[in-house]
Amino acid sequence: MRSPKRPPVPRVKDDDYSESAAEARREFAREQTGVELSHTSHYSIDPASVQGNIENFFGVAQVPIGLAGPLLIHGEHAEGEFYVPLATSEGTLVASYNRGMRLLTACGGVKVTVVEGFMQRAPVFFFDDARQAREFGAWVDAHRNGIREAAESTSRVAKLAHIEQYAVGPLRYLRFNFTTGDAAGQNMVGKATFAACEWIKQEHPDGVRYQLSGGIDTDKKHSQLNTLHSRGRRVIAEATIPAQTIRDMMGVDTKTMFRGRQASNAGAMLAGSVNNGAHAANGITALFIATGQDVANVAESHAAIVYTQLQDNGDYYWSITLPSLIVATFGGGTALGTQREMLELLGCYGQGKADKLAEIIAATVLAGETSLLSAVLAGDWVSSHDRLGRNR
Amino acid sequence: MRSPKRPPVPRVKDDDYSESAAEARREFAREQTGVELSHTSHYSIDPASVQGNIENFFGVAQVPIGLAGPLLIHGEHAEGEFYVPLATSEGTLVASYNRGMRLLTACGGVKVTVVEGFMQRAPVFFFDDARQAREFGAWVDAHRNGIREAAESTSRVAKLAHIEQYAVGPLRYLRFNFTTGDAAGQNMVGKATFAACEWIKQEHPDGVRYQLSGGIDTDKKHSQLNTLHSRGRRVIAEATIPAQTIRDMMGVDTKTMFRGRQASNAGAMLAGSVNNGAHAANGITALFIATGQDVANVAESHAAIVYTQLQDNGDYYWSITLPSLIVATFGGGTALGTQREMLELLGCYGQGKADKLAEIIAATVLAGETSLLSAVLAGDWVSSHDRLGRNR
Amino acid sequence: MRSPKRPPVPRVKDDDYSESAAEARREFAREQTGVELSHTSHYSIDPASVQGNIENFFGVAQVPIGLAGPLLIHGEHAEGEFYVPLATSEGTLVASYNRGMRLLTACGGVKVTVVEGFMQRAPVFFFDDARQAREFGAWVDAHRNGIREAAESTSRVAKLAHIEQYAVGPLRYLRFNFTTGDAAGQNMVGKATFAACEWIKQEHPDGVRYQLSGGIDTDKKHSQLNTLHSRGRRVIAEATIPAQTIRDMMGVDTKTMFRGRQASNAGAMLAGSVNNGAHAANGITALFIATGQDVANVAESHAAIVYTQLQDNGDYYWSITLPSLIVATFGGGTALGTQREMLELLGCYGQGKADKLAEIIAATVLAGETSLLSAVLAGDWVSSHDRLGRNR
Amino acid sequence: MRSPKRPPVPRVKDDDYSESAAEARREFAREQTGVELSHTSHYSIDPASVQGNIENFFGVAQVPIGLAGPLLIHGEHAEGEFYVPLATSEGTLVASYNRGMRLLTACGGVKVTVVEGFMQRAPVFFFDDARQAREFGAWVDAHRNGIREAAESTSRVAKLAHIEQYAVGPLRYLRFNFTTGDAAGQNMVGKATFAACEWIKQEHPDGVRYQLSGGIDTDKKHSQLNTLHSRGRRVIAEATIPAQTIRDMMGVDTKTMFRGRQASNAGAMLAGSVNNGAHAANGITALFIATGQDVANVAESHAAIVYTQLQDNGDYYWSITLPSLIVATFGGGTALGTQREMLELLGCYGQGKADKLAEIIAATVLAGETSLLSAVLAGDWVSSHDRLGRNR
Repeated sequence: MRSPKRPPVPRVKDDDYSESAAEARREFAREQTGVELSHTSHYSIDPASVQGNIENFFGVAQVPIGLAGPLLIHGEHAEGEFYVPLATSEGTLVASYNRGMRLLTACGGVKVTVVEGFMQRAPVFFFDDARQAREFGAWVDAHRNGIREAAESTSRVAKLAHIEQYAVGPLRYLRFNFTTGDAAGQNMVGKATFAACEWIKQEHPDGVRYQLSGGIDTDKKHSQLNTLHSRGRRVIAEATIPAQTIRDMMGVDTKTMFRGRQASNAGAMLAGSVNNGAHAANGITALFIATGQDVANVAESHAAIVYTQLQDNGDYYWSITLPSLIVATFGGGTALGTQREMLELLGCYGQGKADKLAEIIAATVLAGETSLLSAVLAGDWVSSHDRLGRNR
Repeated sequence: MRSPKRPPVPRVKDDDYSESAAEARREFAREQTGVELSHTSHYSIDPASVQGNIENFFGVAQVPIGLAGPLLIHGEHAEGEFYVPLATSEGTLVASYNRGMRLLTACGGVKVTVVEGFMQRAPVFFFDDARQAREFGAWVDAHRNGIREAAESTSRVAKLAHIEQYAVGPLRYLRFNFTTGDAAGQNMVGKATFAACEWIKQEHPDGVRYQLSGGIDTDKKHSQLNTLHSRGRRVIAEATIPAQTIRDMMGVDTKTMFRGRQASNAGAMLAGSVNNGAHAANGITALFIATGQDVANVAESHAAIVYTQLQDNGDYYWSITLPSLIVATFGGGTALGTQREMLELLGCYGQGKADKLAEIIAATVLAGETSLLSAVLAGDWVSSHDRLGRNR
Repeated sequence: MRSPKRPPVPRVKDDDYSESAAEARREFAREQTGVELSHTSHYSIDPASVQGNIENFFGVAQVPIGLAGPLLIHGEHAEGEFYVPLATSEGTLVASYNRGMRLLTACGGVKVTVVEGFMQRAPVFFFDDARQAREFGAWVDAHRNGIREAAESTSRVAKLAHIEQYAVGPLRYLRFNFTTGDAAGQNMVGKATFAACEWIKQEHPDGVRYQLSGGIDTDKKHSQLNTLHSRGRRVIAEATIPAQTIRDMMGVDTKTMFRGRQASNAGAMLAGSVNNGAHAANGITALFIATGQDVANVAESHAAIVYTQLQDNGDYYWSITLPSLIVATFGGGTALGTQREMLELLGCYGQGKADKLAEIIAATVLAGETSLLSAVLAGDWVSSHDRLGRNR
Repeated sequence: MRSPKRPPVPRVKDDDYSESAAEARREFAREQTGVELSHTSHYSIDPASVQGNIENFFGVAQVPIGLAGPLLIHGEHAEGEFYVPLATSEGTLVASYNRGMRLLTACGGVKVTVVEGFMQRAPVFFFDDARQAREFGAWVDAHRNGIREAAESTSRVAKLAHIEQYAVGPLRYLRFNFTTGDAAGQNMVGKATFAACEWIKQEHPDGVRYQLSGGIDTDKKHSQLNTLHSRGRRVIAEATIPAQTIRDMMGVDTKTMFRGRQASNAGAMLAGSVNNGAHAANGITALFIATGQDVANVAESHAAIVYTQLQDNGDYYWSITLPSLIVATFGGGTALGTQREMLELLGCYGQGKADKLAEIIAATVLAGETSLLSAVLAGDWVSSHDRLGRNR
C-alpha cells in the first residue's frame, strides 16, 4: 500500500466549519500549489452555514448571475410575471433566454403543469434462480403495508407511492418511488429504502440478499426508465405562439419552424438522443446553480420530449416535457446565502414551493427553446437574403 | 401581442458591465421582489470582467468549494499528486471523493488517457429526394479541401478533423468534427461550420438549403452518437486495486464487488441507462463549477462505460471511459476570478492545459466510483453482520 | 390519380380460398412474370385452411426444418428432454444449436421460468393542454371498472391486467396490458382496447379524441419500454455449466468466457444494442417459422439481457432474459398443416400450451448462446495454439 | 456429466442429405413424439439441395404466400410495376399491403434509393491499458493496406470499405465494414475479418489478443450503431401522396395524418423505440421468408426512421429510411426451390440483383405504412361517425 507523498488536507477536529479551518486549508493550498486564493476566499457566507453541504470547505466559486425576464407564467403554483436569475459563465445565454421570455410573454405566457413526481432508490435482490426471484416479487406485493411502514418510519416527509418490479435472470430489481415534499429527497429515500430492505430481510422466511442500488434508480444519470416513469418532477411547459408575433419578434415563420422540427425529430431518432429539443440543459443548469439545487442532477433533468403542432391559422403550439426535473426548495443547498436569496427572488424559498420552482424552470426552458431555434432559423433566413442579395 | 406588466430589467447603454449597472439591477430586483441581495451582491470579481460571460449581471452565486486529495494521477499531462477543488452543496460528496482518492493513491494511483477529442456542429441539408441527398454527400466528399478551408478561415484554432455523414429520407446530416485546442469550442465550431455551409451553398451547382443544426450535434444533451464518436474528449481512467487494500480501507471484498458489477451491468441494460457506473456526474459537476466550465455540458459529459475485470489474484481492474468530457482551460468561464484560481490550483490554467484538466477530472470520477460502490457494498456487509449478530 | 398498367391479382368472389383460385393466381403470376411455380405450387395444405391466415394465397414457401436435440428442460410447463424443430436456410444454425443442447443437457438441463406476460395496445388521447391530459389520467384511474368491462366484453379470453399511463405535452398515452391466454393476442387486444376507448369517449363528460395507436404499443418493433415492461412473455432461461464440462465438450474455459462477457457487456453499452448476448434471434426465428408464430415479432422478441456469474469453483452460471417473447399455441398460424405438426412434436399444440412453448424457445436460445460463444472463444483458443505452434 | 436419456437425432454418414436420411429422421420423430408428419414430409425440394442450408433436415414448413400488387416502383434497379409475394400466416397482412400498393401506385409510385451498404464483423482487442489500446488503433490506421490484403485474400467478393474504431477502457473494438456484392455476407466477412485479425496478430510487434466478436457487430440484434452506420443496405423509400387521393382511397385526410405523426414521433422518443413508423417488420419478414433471406435479420432490418412533411397544398411527403436492411439474391436460402421462384418472380434471382431486391422491399414497407396508418386513422374517423350517428 503506497502512502501519499503529499500531506492530507488539514481538518480541525470539532471545529471544521469555522473560518479558521477554512483559512487553514487556504493556507495549505497556497503552500502546496503556490496559488493565492484572493477571490476564492472572498465570500459572505458563514463557514458554519455550510455544514451538511460540503466537507473541507475552503472558499467559494463565484458564479455570475444575470437577471432575465419578466416571463409570464401560468402555472398552478407560479402565476404572473417572473424575473429569473441565471448563473452561468456562457456569454449570450442570459440574453437568449431573455429574448425567449419576451416572446413568450408577448404571446400570453407559458402554461406549466407538474403532472407527477417521485424520487427513487432501487435495490437489487439476489436469488438462486428466476423462479425464486419471481416468488419474492409476489411476496413483496403481499407485504406492501409492512414495507411501507418500515420505509416511512424513517422520515416524516417521504411517502412510499409505489414499487416498480423488474426481473432479470435470478435478480429482482425493486424501484421504490417516494414523494418527498419540497426536498429533492435522494438521501431521504435512500434511508427509507434501506429500512424497507432490512425489514424485508428480517421478515422474509428464507432471508434475502440485496444490494442497495442495482443501477436502475437511475441516479445522477439519464435513462429511458427516467423518461418513462419520471424522476423528480415531470413538468410540461406549453405555449401557443401566433405566427405574426414570432415573425415580428424573431424574424422567423412558423411553417419553416415546423418543417425544421421534423428534421430535428428525425435527427434525435438517428442520434439516439435523449432530448429532441435544443438546449434545455442550459436553462436548467443556470437555474440549478443560482438556486442551490444538486447541479449534478442536470444528468437526469436535461432529458426532454418536444411536441409541437402547426395550427391551421399558422400559429405554433409548442410543448416541452421534462420527465425528470429534480428540484428542491428545502434542504440541500437551498439555504445557502446567495442560493436562498435567489429562491426568495422567485418566491420559492422553503416548504410548499418545489412545484412552483419546477414550473418556473420548465417555463424558462421553453423560453430558451424558442429563442435558440429562432436564431438557428433566422440565420438561415438571413443568409438566404445574403445569397439573394449577392445574386443581384 | 401582450405587453409585460412589469418593467424590463434595466441596462446601462455602453456601460452595462459596471458595478453601477450591477447595482442598478440589484436595486431593481429589490424593488420588484422585496429581496435583499446581501449575499448575492458580495463578490470580488470586477463586473467588467464578466463581459462575454453573462448579460444582465447583478451578482454571484457563492458555491462552496471543498478540497479533496491528494490523488495520485499518472496521465500523459497530469502526473503526480493533485489536490482537487470540488464546488458543491451536497454533503458527503467531498468526503466521499476524498476517500476514493485515498484508496486509489494507496493503490499506486490512477492511469488516465485522453484517447481522442472533437467538438461538433451538425447542420442538416434539405433535398427533394434521397437520391439528391446521396449525390450531395458524394459532392461533399469530393470538395473536402474547399470545405476545410472555408471552415478553418474563421479561427486560428479550430481544425476540421473529419465530417460524418448520415442519410435520412431526403435529408443529409453532416456532422463537422473539429479539434479546438484548449477551448471547449462550441461557438468556434458553430462559426466555422456556418462558414463551411455558406461555402457549400455558394459552390454547389444546384444551390442547397440547410439548417445549421439538425439535432445530431448533439449539443447540451446526451446521445448514443456522442458515446460512440466522442464529444469533447474521450478520457479513460484506470486503476488496479489490490484485494487486500480495498478490504482494509473500505471493508469490502473484490469478489462481492465484481458480482455486484454484473447486476449493475444488467441494470443499465434494463433501464436504458447512459452510464453503467455510479455517479460520474457528481465529480464532473463539482469540478466544472469550480473551474469555470460550461456546466450544462454535464448533460453530455456524465455518460460513461465502466469496464472491470477480477484478476486471478483477486485484484480488481477498474476502468471508466468518459466518451464526451467537455473541458476548457481557455475561454468561457475559465478566466473568472475564482474559477481561474481553481484552475491554477490544478496547474491547468490557460493554453496547453485542457488535456491535463480532462485527465484530472476523469481520475477524480474514478475515485468517486470506488468510494460510492464501496459504501453501497459495505452497507450490505454491515447489515449482514447486524443480522448475523441478531441471530446469536 | 394514376391507374396501374398491369392488372390486379385475380380474386374469386366467394371462393377465393379454393385450389382453383390459388391456381388462377399462379397462372396469372406465370403470365405476368414468366416464372414457373413448380415448387411454390407444391403443398399439402388445403387452400381452404388458410382463410384467416392470408389473402391472395397462391402457394407456399418451403422452409427446410432440421431437428435438434434432445434438450433437457426444467420448466414449469416443459419438463424433460425435447427435440426441437428449427426452420431455417442458414447453414450451421441447427448444428450449432444442437451442440449447445448437448452441452446444456450434459450440464443437467436448462431451468426456464415465465415470470410475467402481457399483450398491449396503446392509444394516445389528445387534449388542449397538459393539465386536461393529467385530469383525464385521473379520470381513467377512477373509471377502471367501466373501462375493464368494456374491454373485456369483446372476448372471452382477453383480461385487462393494468393500464400504464404516460404524459407528454397535451397527450396522454394509455398502454392497455392484457393477458390473452394461448393466443399472441394482438388482434384481440386491439379490439378490446378499441371498445375501451369508445366507452371512454362516450362516458367522459367532455368527450375525448384519440388515435388507437400512439406508437408506444410498441408493436412489431423493439423498444426499451418492451424490455422494461414485457411484451408477450418475459422468460428466463438459466443453467450452471461446470467448468470441466464446457472445457471437455467445447474446448473453452469459463474464466476466459467470463472475461469475454465483460467486453460484450461494454460493447452492448457502447453500441446501444438491445441484446448483450450473441444471437437469440436465430433460434427464435427458426422456431417461430416452424411453429406458425407471427415471425415479424422477432422484432420485439429478439431483445435479451444476459446475466452471468463465475462461481468460486469455476462453474459458470448463465442466464438469458427474454423480456418480450411473443408466442401462441392457438390462433394465428398455429393450425396450419406443418406448423401444427411441429407444435405437436413439441407437445405444444392448442390451449394451455403457450407457457410451455415459451419455455422451450427460451431454453433453445440459451443453447444457442453457449454454442456460439464457445465457438468464438475456441477460435481464439485454436489460433492461440496455432501461434504457439509456430513459435516452436 | 449427465447423458441424455433420449437418443440423438439420427444421421447418415456421407449421405445425410438424402431422402432416406430425412425419412429416417421423420420416422425417428414419429417414434419419439407420436406425431405423424404428413404435411412436414410433403415437399418438392430435393434434400440434396439443402446442404449448406440446414442440418438434420427432416421436412419443411409450408408457409402460405399471397400475391400483392402491382406496386409501381421507381428505383435505380427496380423500375416499373411489381407483384410482391408475401409469406405469412397473419390474416389481413397481404390485404393491407395490397391496399397500400394500390394507393402508392395511384400516387405515381414509390421512389427508392439504396444510399449505402456494408456488412460487418467487429472483433475486440485486449490490452493492458487504454494507452496501449490507443497506440494499437494508430498502428491499425498505419497498416490499412496489409490488413485489407489479408482480409480480401479470403474471398473474391468481399471488399474492405473501412474500419471503425472505438475505445473503451483497455479495449479496442474494430468494426470491419465490407461490401459483399449480392450476398448478405455474414460468413464471408467473418472469415475475412478473422484473416485480418490473424494478420494483425502476426505483424504487430507486441502480439495482440482478441476475440472475434466484441458484441458491436451488431449481428442478429438491433443497435443504435446499426441505425447510424448501416448494416446491410441503407434504403430510403419516398412518395408524395396527394391529399385528394388518400382521402378518396383511404378516407383519411393528410392534416389529421400529419398531426398524428407528431404524436407517433413523441411516442417513439418516449418508449425508446427503434422505429417511429408502424410495422416495417411485417412486410420485411413476409418478403424475407418468401425469398430465402436470413429471416433472423429482421432483428436488424426492422429499424426505421419515418420522416414526413405536409406540403402547402396539403399533399403528404412520406419517407421511410431502413438503415439496416440485410438482403441477398445469392447464397444462403436464395437457391432453394420456392425461394428461388419468388426471387425470379421479382426478377431478383442471382448476381447483380441485391440492390433491386432491397428497393422492392423498402417500397413494400412504405406501402404497408400508408395502409396501416390510414386504417388507424379511419377507425377514428369511422367511430366518430358512429358516435355522431348515435347522438341523433
